[in-house]
Amino acid sequence: MRDATLPERSIWTEAEGGRTVVRFVDQLRLPAALETGTLRAWEEAEEAIRAMRLRGAPLIGVAGAYGLCLAVQADPSDLSLTAAAARLRAARPTAVNLARDVDGLAAELAPLPVAARPAAAWAWAEALAAQDVETNRRIGEHGLALIDEAARRRPGGAPVRVLTHCNAGALATVAHGTATSPIYRAAGAGIPLHVWVSETRPRLQGAALTAWELGARGIPHQVIVDGAAAHLMQRGEVDLVVVGTDRTTRTGDVCNKIGTYAKALAAREHGVPFYAAVPSRSIDWTTRGGIAEIPIEERDPDEVLTATGIGRDGAPARLRVAAPGTRARNPAFDVTPAGLVTGLVTDRGRCAASEEGLLELYPEERER
Amino acid sequence: MRDATLPERSIWTEAEGGRTVVRFVDQLRLPAALETGTLRAWEEAEEAIRAMRLRGAPLIGVAGAYGLCLAVQADPSDLSLTAAAARLRAARPTAVNLARDVDGLAAELAPLPVAARPAAAWAWAEALAAQDVETNRRIGEHGLALIDEAARRRPGGAPVRVLTHCNAGALATVAHGTATSPIYRAAGAGIPLHVWVSETRPRLQGAALTAWELGARGIPHQVIVDGAAAHLMQRGEVDLVVVGTDRTTRTGDVCNKIGTYAKALAAREHGVPFYAAVPSRSIDWTTRGGIAEIPIEERDPDEVLTATGIGRDGAPARLRVAAPGTRARNPAFDVTPAGLVTGLVTDRGRCAASEEGLLELYPEERER
Repeated sequence: MRDATLPERSIWTEAEGGRTVVRFVDQLRLPAALETGTLRAWEEAEEAIRAMRLRGAPLIGVAGAYGLCLAVQADPSDLSLTAAAARLRAARPTAVNLARDVDGLAAELAPLPVAARPAAAWAWAEALAAQDVETNRRIGEHGLALIDEAARRRPGGAPVRVLTHCNAGALATVAHGTATSPIYRAAGAGIPLHVWVSETRPRLQGAALTAWELGARGIPHQVIVDGAAAHLMQRGEVDLVVVGTDRTTRTGDVCNKIGTYAKALAAREHGVPFYAAVPSRSIDWTTRGGIAEIPIEERDPDEVLTATGIGRDGAPARLRVAAPGTRARNPAFDVTPAGLVTGLVTDRGRCAASEEGLLELYPEERER
Repeated sequence: MRDATLPERSIWTEAEGGRTVVRFVDQLRLPAALETGTLRAWEEAEEAIRAMRLRGAPLIGVAGAYGLCLAVQADPSDLSLTAAAARLRAARPTAVNLARDVDGLAAELAPLPVAARPAAAWAWAEALAAQDVETNRRIGEHGLALIDEAARRRPGGAPVRVLTHCNAGALATVAHGTATSPIYRAAGAGIPLHVWVSETRPRLQGAALTAWELGARGIPHQVIVDGAAAHLMQRGEVDLVVVGTDRTTRTGDVCNKIGTYAKALAAREHGVPFYAAVPSRSIDWTTRGGIAEIPIEERDPDEVLTATGIGRDGAPARLRVAAPGTRARNPAFDVTPAGLVTGLVTDRGRCAASEEGLLELYPEERER
């Protein structure tokens, strides 16, 4: 089922001329071409995260950690460590993973002798990447039941119609994806599926990345514009919504790509179950009120005023969708209040989108 | 305030070599360039409507009528009249205006002697166009009060933040627009405004047309992606939603561009008034249940799989947003149930979005 051209992981390390470099699937080249990028310095990691060559909450956490590895490989001093960590953690503000993983590694390295730092850093980042793969594998395992239940409600083996938004796919993680992990498991288990891929303006991660991933795996899907999801739910053409998350609060509010909230409102209106796939590392135990407390990244208005894709010559291209001089507003994320979320699928299992629900799975966080 | 380059009307007639031709603002060239198209045969009118060189429910009604004028100008026979009417009315299925106006003119011409048909046709179509201008002027008059009321609720003369979707603007009508007519009136009356322009994928009529219209008139605005409207409402940044309609049922269900329904759900959630600007001719008195009865046009999936805009060379351009071979679904309209609509602004005044509300303004329809 897996296309031979798909790499095993979205980010990995290789030896190159006596040092370690980081390779990754360059998401800015997709869907025009599957190309591997290379990071040889922490500044390149920061640029790749900021420019969204590497994107997806779990992936940028790992990429940030690898970036710090590159920094201490070049210069393991305290000054280097502190400066690189500060810049890397600030490359994207909304997802909790980036700051947490960069800070986590920096705290690990700080007490170590300078000479021991590079090896310790690479080991820590590799473990983080391996943990992400395992986390997503488990989300797939726990989420499979959701799709299986929906399949039983479909008449005569008709496909389960799953709607997802943005790319919470293999590309957004080290492997498997979060929202896509149950989908890939279900497809592997032979459950007939039809995935509605919300295109996800402005950056079109649904059309450019999720559709590409599903296509490479042979899973039936159709792209829709973001505004069409509510219509399809109104017509009874959606059985289940599964999205990813950039940050989920202690109380179950789900911060995710702009456009998610509108889908949650439509799902509630039409009784369509709405789930978020939540890796443990995306839970922000210190935040309660998602709307008030999570900083929403406002990105360059030019993303809204342009569209990117494949030009006539087959290469990545960009065009302007509005007259020159037009202004735009570009909030990159929104917050879906817990009350609209049917449930969370974490790597520890499924739970209600509430503090009580989460604490049943994470009892060690009760006292925080 | 009006930019000198803005034509008075979006469609008009001119004499050319002893016959009458139809000129129009070519909406497929905007926002790259303001260009005038010419229709010399009914087949050209049909093509222009189908390809959306001319679009907007009121405008395509008028364009369909002008198309029939071109048909009888070339050949006033019954056969010509019947054949052209059948093809023109079928060029777009959702808006009620096109079929109604084409059929209305055909019925007017059928009993006339063949020789009298061309002059009668042009007179009828001109009257229809003039009626559209007057209708929209009145919508502006009645809708102005809404914006004025919102302005009074804003602190210290802060701008009223109006959100609109698609292009229910001057370009979508002969003049003034429907949803934009109150906005233009309010701007003319000196009420400070900020218009949120929902870009309206897949054809981007918001970004390409509405933003262009507002810019040409100097009205402050920002384009947003369709998925961002709910977020802005959640943050209290929208005072009023005003949209157009392609068809409104006897019971007040509002059929409009895909993406409208999601905005109505968000507006209800956040107590934001949601109004539709409804020309009398867009009311379908024979339809009650909008969701069950209104045919939703499914357009070419390629519209979803591509984006159009201005290329590097300044000319209209197109690119693919998904990998070759990707499939898409492209419903062009959706239905917002009356229960989500705060009110309708018609050319006869404002009313509740209900059969009773509409019949108070249109008592002559009670017995239908």
